[in-house]
Amino acid sequence: MTDTPLPIAAPDRRLGERVGAYLDTLTKPPGSLGRLERLAVDLAAMTGEPFPRVTPPGVLVFAADHGVADEGVSAFPQEVTAQMVANFVAGGAAINVFARRIGARLEVIDVGVAGAVSGQGVVDEKVRPGTANIAHRDAMSRAEAEAAIEAGRRAAGRAVETGCRCLIVGEMGIANTTASSAVLAVLTCEPVARLVGRGTGIDDARLAHKRRVVEGAIAARAPDPADPLGVLASLGGLEIAAMAGACLEAAVRRVPLLVDGFIATVAALVACRLAPGARDYLVFGHRSREPGHAVALAALDAEPLLDLALRLGEGTGAALAFPLLEAACDMLAEMATFADAGVAGDDRA
Amino acid sequence: MTDTPLPIAAPDRRLGERVGAYLDTLTKPPGSLGRLERLAVDLAAMTGEPFPRVTPPGVLVFAADHGVADEGVSAFPQEVTAQMVANFVAGGAAINVFARRIGARLEVIDVGVAGAVSGQGVVDEKVRPGTANIAHRDAMSRAEAEAAIEAGRRAAGRAVETGCRCLIVGEMGIANTTASSAVLAVLTCEPVARLVGRGTGIDDARLAHKRRVVEGAIAARAPDPADPLGVLASLGGLEIAAMAGACLEAAVRRVPLLVDGFIATVAALVACRLAPGARDYLVFGHRSREPGHAVALAALDAEPLLDLALRLGEGTGAALAFPLLEAACDMLAEMATFADAGVAGDDRA
Repeated sequence: MTDTPLPIAAPDRRLGERVGAYLDTLTKPPGSLGRLERLAVDLAAMTGEPFPRVTPPGVLVFAADHGVADEGVSAFPQEVTAQMVANFVAGGAAINVFARRIGARLEVIDVGVAGAVSGQGVVDEKVRPGTANIAHRDAMSRAEAEAAIEAGRRAAGRAVETGCRCLIVGEMGIANTTASSAVLAVLTCEPVARLVGRGTGIDDARLAHKRRVVEGAIAARAPDPADPLGVLASLGGLEIAAMAGACLEAAVRRVPLLVDGFIATVAALVACRLAPGARDYLVFGHRSREPGHAVALAALDAEPLLDLALRLGEGTGAALAFPLLEAACDMLAEMATFADAGVAGDDRA
Repeated sequence: MTDTPLPIAAPDRRLGERVGAYLDTLTKPPGSLGRLERLAVDLAAMTGEPFPRVTPPGVLVFAADHGVADEGVSAFPQEVTAQMVANFVAGGAAINVFARRIGARLEVIDVGVAGAVSGQGVVDEKVRPGTANIAHRDAMSRAEAEAAIEAGRRAAGRAVETGCRCLIVGEMGIANTTASSAVLAVLTCEPVARLVGRGTGIDDARLAHKRRVVEGAIAARAPDPADPLGVLASLGGLEIAAMAGACLEAAVRRVPLLVDGFIATVAALVACRLAPGARDYLVFGHRSREPGHAVALAALDAEPLLDLALRLGEGTGAALAFPLLEAACDMLAEMATFADAGVAGDDRA
């Protein structure tokens, strides 16, 4: 995939301009709906539709394990990844609750859970049963990273083919803030101390240990920052690769993709390093409390819609932001114009 | 109403604590849903329900005119107030669009539009046909301010009695950022230059003029900052008084009220000066671009849920924030516990 450029079209900026001009005819002071107006313009340009729609959304939750969990970098044991997948299937996790509220189709994809995943309703795309421990060896081979990217692309394709008009990507994987921090540090050349955070909630001693683990892994693996696939293979995770693949496929299909928190944003950064045109199809849901998130967002020149001190993942922050995309589409499609409503305009006009 | 204290009960903080402890048993790292967790605790304490619900919401849009529009402080002519009321009735305004999306019951209340308001579906509670021009005389009498407060209380009462479990207040009134800035400057003793903004979009020259008008009105009316009803009567507006009344009634009935932008927040501040216990029943929807909004929010120790550069009013920012309250309630009611889901907890536990 690194050899053949993906067929990602530029958004239709001319249509975006027309939509922007139309917004100024609606019964509100020009620009007074702020970021919602920008969203409507962007969604039109992405989709090529003058009145874009984002419903129904499709939520894709990619699950995988991380060998680096052996280093004691997380507050939770590795079994929790598989247990949470079962919870997704049973409908009891936060992402289930929020996905139901927004009428989303939810798919859970096992791209690399270490143990057997019980329960129907999980798509089996297991590339390998968890990554290797990056403290000692590469997380996976380049071929495995590519396979996980392709699994993510297929998931996005399935969602679009069943009618989803907006994709939300999320993840589950104990120790994946460690892998994401390592990938991000290499791709942005930022110091690890600025990126590594408490993940699901570790104490000061374990945080210091986690930083040393990430620094040690980067020094030992030493991937080339200009080779995003190599960075992913040596330090990343299978669910991170799959989310990057979903970002790429969304762009190919001109479907907006709403990015979740820290780990999903690192995946989006990988996607944009593989194919810069993917950036135009991304919307960012929320600003996480994980310190690396601000760095990842800055690297993508992204300003998320929400800032609610979330640090859960699973796609929850993106699902919570989704109603704002719906509102932007509704504003465009349903508001009356000044002329239609018989309302006098701004007296400068 | 200033003589008889309103029967506002304190929220049930003990129930809030129980809900907070229950949240830590749900399948997520403790605290990882950030502000949503705080919202769930607050909504439980307000309503006295361990599993609060906020649907259906009721949107109350209060409309009134301002004599100070004669001073040329707005980008729009005064007729727009009545025209926008007709637009609300026809369903074409932004608040109609957003209220439909959240399944809200919308009521438009004329508490003081200058002209006749055409169309069915507007509740006639006109106290007087617009305020007097505060550049020359008091906006209204104390009795009129009280009557507008009572109209707001009745509107809130009607919404609750028809089953609404959360109230959203918004407004329409050309020149009401001018009146709100004047009220806010007196109540907070802040300099006018820090508060006055561009409202619906005035230019620099008109902005400087608007500041002088507000400063002149405050100097001429000189109300006592410790007398909120007097401040409202001398400098305020009928829709501001009505929104304050709705805030008071929501608190009396233990129903959460979601405050919109600058003007609604000034009304909320008036309500809290009249009855400090009302503060506990308020949630703040968004941070407006109007500079006075930050001052009003700080005076209420309030941190809004959204920050989307909105500056429209009508209740739109609050309606956009409403899905976050729904999500907080859903999280509490629908998520599985660690025990139920068979998920291992934080390994410190």
